[in-house]
Amino acid sequence: MREEWGGFTAGHWTDDVNVRDFVQRNYTPYDGDESFLEGPTKATDTLWGKVQELQAQERANGGVLDCETEVVSGLTAYGPGYIDPELKDLEKVVGLQTDKPLKRAFMPYGGIKMAEQAAESYGYKINPKYHKIFNEYHKTHNQAVFDAYTPEMRAARHSHVITGLPDTYGRGRIVGDYRRVALYGIDFLIAKKQEDLLNCGDGTMTDDVIRLREEIAEQIRALKGMKEMAAAYGYDISQPARDAHEAVQWLYFGYLAAIKTQNGAAMSVGRISTFLDIYMQRDLAAGKITESEAQELIDHLVLKFRMVKFARIPSYNELFSGDPVWATLEVAGLGQDGRSMVTKNDFRFLHTLENMGPAPEPNLTVLYSKRLPEAFRRYAAKISIDTSSIQYENDDVMRPVWGDDYSICCCVSATETGKEMQFFGARANLAKCLNYAINGGKDAKFNDKQGNHMQVGPELAPITSEYLDYDEVMHKFDLMMDWLAGLYVNILDLIQYMHDKYYYEAAEMALIDTNVRRTFATGIAGFSHVVDSLSAIKYAKVKTVRDESGLVVDYKVEGDFPRYGNDDDRADDIAVWLLKTFMTKIRKHHTYRNSEPTTSILTITSNVVYGKATGALPDGRPAYTPFSPGANPSYGAEKNGLLASLNSVAKLPYEYALDGISNTQTINPGALGNDEGQRIGNLVHVLDGYFSEGAHHLNVNVFGVDKLKDAMEHPEKPEYANFTIRVSGYAVKFIDLTHEQQLDVIARTCHDRM
Amino acid sequence: MREEWGGFTAGHWTDDVNVRDFVQRNYTPYDGDESFLEGPTKATDTLWGKVQELQAQERANGGVLDCETEVVSGLTAYGPGYIDPELKDLEKVVGLQTDKPLKRAFMPYGGIKMAEQAAESYGYKINPKYHKIFNEYHKTHNQAVFDAYTPEMRAARHSHVITGLPDTYGRGRIVGDYRRVALYGIDFLIAKKQEDLLNCGDGTMTDDVIRLREEIAEQIRALKGMKEMAAAYGYDISQPARDAHEAVQWLYFGYLAAIKTQNGAAMSVGRISTFLDIYMQRDLAAGKITESEAQELIDHLVLKFRMVKFARIPSYNELFSGDPVWATLEVAGLGQDGRSMVTKNDFRFLHTLENMGPAPEPNLTVLYSKRLPEAFRRYAAKISIDTSSIQYENDDVMRPVWGDDYSICCCVSATETGKEMQFFGARANLAKCLNYAINGGKDAKFNDKQGNHMQVGPELAPITSEYLDYDEVMHKFDLMMDWLAGLYVNILDLIQYMHDKYYYEAAEMALIDTNVRRTFATGIAGFSHVVDSLSAIKYAKVKTVRDESGLVVDYKVEGDFPRYGNDDDRADDIAVWLLKTFMTKIRKHHTYRNSEPTTSILTITSNVVYGKATGALPDGRPAYTPFSPGANPSYGAEKNGLLASLNSVAKLPYEYALDGISNTQTINPGALGNDEGQRIGNLVHVLDGYFSEGAHHLNVNVFGVDKLKDAMEHPEKPEYANFTIRVSGYAVKFIDLTHEQQLDVIARTCHDRM
Repeated sequence: MREEWGGFTAGHWTDDVNVRDFVQRNYTPYDGDESFLEGPTKATDTLWGKVQELQAQERANGGVLDCETEVVSGLTAYGPGYIDPELKDLEKVVGLQTDKPLKRAFMPYGGIKMAEQAAESYGYKINPKYHKIFNEYHKTHNQAVFDAYTPEMRAARHSHVITGLPDTYGRGRIVGDYRRVALYGIDFLIAKKQEDLLNCGDGTMTDDVIRLREEIAEQIRALKGMKEMAAAYGYDISQPARDAHEAVQWLYFGYLAAIKTQNGAAMSVGRISTFLDIYMQRDLAAGKITESEAQELIDHLVLKFRMVKFARIPSYNELFSGDPVWATLEVAGLGQDGRSMVTKNDFRFLHTLENMGPAPEPNLTVLYSKRLPEAFRRYAAKISIDTSSIQYENDDVMRPVWGDDYSICCCVSATETGKEMQFFGARANLAKCLNYAINGGKDAKFNDKQGNHMQVGPELAPITSEYLDYDEVMHKFDLMMDWLAGLYVNILDLIQYMHDKYYYEAAEMALIDTNVRRTFATGIAGFSHVVDSLSAIKYAKVKTVRDESGLVVDYKVEGDFPRYGNDDDRADDIAVWLLKTFMTKIRKHHTYRNSEPTTSILTITSNVVYGKATGALPDGRPAYTPFSPGANPSYGAEKNGLLASLNSVAKLPYEYALDGISNTQTINPGALGNDEGQRIGNLVHVLDGYFSEGAHHLNVNVFGVDKLKDAMEHPEKPEYANFTIRVSGYAVKFIDLTHEQQLDVIARTCHDRM
Repeated sequence: MREEWGGFTAGHWTDDVNVRDFVQRNYTPYDGDESFLEGPTKATDTLWGKVQELQAQERANGGVLDCETEVVSGLTAYGPGYIDPELKDLEKVVGLQTDKPLKRAFMPYGGIKMAEQAAESYGYKINPKYHKIFNEYHKTHNQAVFDAYTPEMRAARHSHVITGLPDTYGRGRIVGDYRRVALYGIDFLIAKKQEDLLNCGDGTMTDDVIRLREEIAEQIRALKGMKEMAAAYGYDISQPARDAHEAVQWLYFGYLAAIKTQNGAAMSVGRISTFLDIYMQRDLAAGKITESEAQELIDHLVLKFRMVKFARIPSYNELFSGDPVWATLEVAGLGQDGRSMVTKNDFRFLHTLENMGPAPEPNLTVLYSKRLPEAFRRYAAKISIDTSSIQYENDDVMRPVWGDDYSICCCVSATETGKEMQFFGARANLAKCLNYAINGGKDAKFNDKQGNHMQVGPELAPITSEYLDYDEVMHKFDLMMDWLAGLYVNILDLIQYMHDKYYYEAAEMALIDTNVRRTFATGIAGFSHVVDSLSAIKYAKVKTVRDESGLVVDYKVEGDFPRYGNDDDRADDIAVWLLKTFMTKIRKHHTYRNSEPTTSILTITSNVVYGKATGALPDGRPAYTPFSPGANPSYGAEKNGLLASLNSVAKLPYEYALDGISNTQTINPGALGNDEGQRIGNLVHVLDGYFSEGAHHLNVNVFGVDKLKDAMEHPEKPEYANFTIRVSGYAVKFIDLTHEQQLDVIARTCHDRM
């Protein structure tokens, strides 16, 4: 046993990289309540006050405080940076993405054009020398993807039948096992990667082996870069962390390496809480730190996660509103041995929302089970009610698939920590696909160069009847989904290939096993609208309204029909059928690097943009209005209260949507009860019930619509500065949403009854 | 028919890119003699005089006249450049690699380190900003290859058992069909490539399809760049050439695009002579040009080929001595229909060696058959005798394999023009492999870190007997060749992969069919020594001499044995066995992009460097002395005269060495006859006989050893300024060889009798 590991129980982890084994052998479950927690230290108050000042300046400045124009981001592109150089001794956890707080880095590898545009949209100009370098000497990911796109792909992208493709920035959704830096130090990790390089391939140099060998070499280079980066801050991370402070700091350096080199949509932190608690416990037991110091370390780490920023282009901000980075971080869950993995640290992380107030980042996620200690479930519910900043995911459905050391790598998608990476990409707009099925692949909104409706999908015979026939629609929809699933997978294949070629995540992959499992994450948009539309065609009469060219541009529904979100099997069965059918079609296709296809029902805030591109639907949704987000029932569809709605969503089989099923609900505080105790009890009851049904995810918001309206009209009120809400897949400061997104949030169902 | 094609016979070539079809339908065979030829024009004399002055300055300057340090080479990196701006109106064919004649371009993509070293070795310093750009922002081919190499590969490279790997520069051996630029103009070529992009893949985006789609996009970009490059010289090459002058100029622009963007060892020109003759004939028939003007166009084109230069590192110059670029250019050959393809232009190209004197470049190659018109065969023989600047290749063995429109893509390797590219790489040192077989994979010359003989090959049981047993040696050699062939193919797989990734030849591939045939060229070094060694072990007694570690470091041969090069089947059968066996082992392995493996027996001048790394051999060759080059018999082995030697080489089956079998012979003028007529007649007779036996290649030198010795001692004598000799695979100015190479050439057999 190494000296730094004194007091830890040995195991497989001492010889091999195996953080899970370390955690399982060494963590201390905690089933007590929150009474041990300490408030913020003076240093925390000072630093958080400083950051809030900077955030206010950032908002006053139009959303960006500062933007790099001269330096290409990289592990060692900058010397050390501090929140405030004069206060740097207060910072228990050091390290910034650039040289200044909240300053956005210049990251050209995803696409130089986008990097230039992002800076320009905030009034900055990238040094023109980089235009030449990244156009003439080094090709970027975006250029390469567009080189290889087919006209069909471009058309599908243009019409938004496939949308949100990561072809202009990092793909994200890769969670480095940042704990490894703390547990092993960089030198051990380098030695292991060197061993892997020696054992990579049997000598036959197929493309796959060559690619992987080069990647391992790049990973080793990145590990060396991390040491250099940490050294600039005065830390030698070549050896394991010796105490809690170093563990937190080493781990953060690992994460910092990721966010200095990549700008993926989701740059998640992972499952670090229980791991770090082991160091805290050791130091607390030895009397080396106090609880206040332990909390301070967590507060300062969280403070850093709150400061992560990327430069984005306006169209990106429309899609993912409010500057999210998905610094997703998990607490709780159960071990395979049945023990709760809740530790004091899990309380500490939730407690940051009290010590420093609500905040969208890190994207705090409770891995839920009704088997978790009651005190913890109640504390989490309390924080939800107070801050609306937490999401819940069902550990009981994820653990059998991903084990007990998975992380959430974006909004809701599980990934085995340190053993897996995800090829992420975008969503198929199944609502638009339904219209294509009816209209023979023609788009209602987008025209071709001749001014006719653009032919985007295959030229199948359109439906010509006045009233829609369920069997005919189902048959044509099946054919059109076949086409869309294939095209979608192939677009993603191409994007992932180019990503590996032009923008490989060496720093993140360096902290993941070499023989990595790869999942291939697709997604569905417009889910509830397709379900309700098919239900309308089946159970009511739907009349087509055609334009002068004969294209169906609207629908009149005659009669009533069951809607998804009311615990009515007639609609919910269609929902299950839709998910299973689409996933089955996705699975038919070749996936890059033999990755395992999955799908999600998850739109984040992109439901607004996707809806804007999509015409009227047979469920009565008007043209070009927002979709309901994720797996949520359609706005106004839920007539039977919160529990019925939750029951509908819980019917969707997680095995067919391993990338996640996002459900966002807002409950009026009054609906939960009259006092705090009642509200907490009821929310715990709701969560226990919902997840026992096999549901996957829940965003919990507890506020009334009036508060939203007031915040929209009076964003300047101090109480709204940090007013955070859960939207589909992440949390966001309400006042940072676009006006359009705010209106959408207000339009969503707010349950006034259970 | 387009206006530019007036007078041409239409065919498939008018709708599709099909230069062969154009040539076959339109060329005018010529079976007359050289009496029509014209001497140099005043412009030619002036320009060639100027270039010779520059060449003298270059030599005085240590081998390099000027070196770019500020501009990265590219299609449009420079404005127009001329031999002498004041004489630019004299230049009938314009275009330089850089802005000045003989100035070497900065080409970092193969490897920035090498580009920097090349400049430094001549006293230049690349602007340091490029160090950062090509290390931090853009990785180069060389870095990537070394990232992926295994320790075994590095050891094999270090010990020179595999050697001459193209891991530090462009791979070369790709001959763009430069004729296409003249015949079709760039716009048509772009349109065809755009069609190809539309039809590339059926939508399923496997890695292969994605890679190819991106490559086509890069090719289209390169075609657009060529137009821009030509426009800088005042030419619009978007449309087909209208006359002979434009045809020559357009074609040269195509080639110029290649040498501005790539620095492969071999940057060959291809089979352009008959093609260009069609334009000459049309203009001559219409009275638009005179014979003198036709010759001037060819002279000026050749002048440009004589000026091609690349910046090389010292170790490269040791390997390929004398600054060769393999601007290989073919004349003659027969069509599939049996017609001779000799045209007046073929005479004109050979005639450049008279008009401007001998020169190593372009590497003039006669595609030989005894069915070629006698007058042409005699004229070629005459030029050989006068200049020693021509090589001959057997059209009768190549035509059945490669058709009648192949080009020679380096020294001796055929490639279907515009339909094929070659993955080239290096040589396996079979002589060293034989020693490894005897010594259990241990190297006699190179030590490991502990100071012991380095274990390079597999740890097979060594031979421990005092006298070598033929069957035991053959068995162990078979096993060791198995290992070497596998390792060799895998190294090349890796290099080719990285080349496509980091240094793709877009400009050359833009002038080749999209659905390209790919050959994978391996090579053999030390051929004759292995044959003679095995013969010695079989027919004489070979005693091992061991060092203190027991390793065999020398051999004593007791008794006589037959040697390869004397038309003795006992030795020659071993030669055939060796080639077949090695090629069969090569064929076992996976090759990159499913390319077709071939091999060559060809060492160029690298026989010296390879020999220096190789210990003594059982044939009596002392340690660390040069190998005989290519397929040549060993120095001193040939005892039965030229014809017997040629007969031995002719026994090697071309089907097993489709990449070529290089044979270089020097004949004393006196051996050929007493007067010019007799010498010509005898040389034609030798060639007719040799190639009728199925031999592949012959370099013909006609001079005595005394002349070589005098030139070595008095390089300043004016008659030696352009004294050119054929070495293995190319021609070189004797005085440009290293002293070591000169000694090697002098040591080679000079036949004094037939």
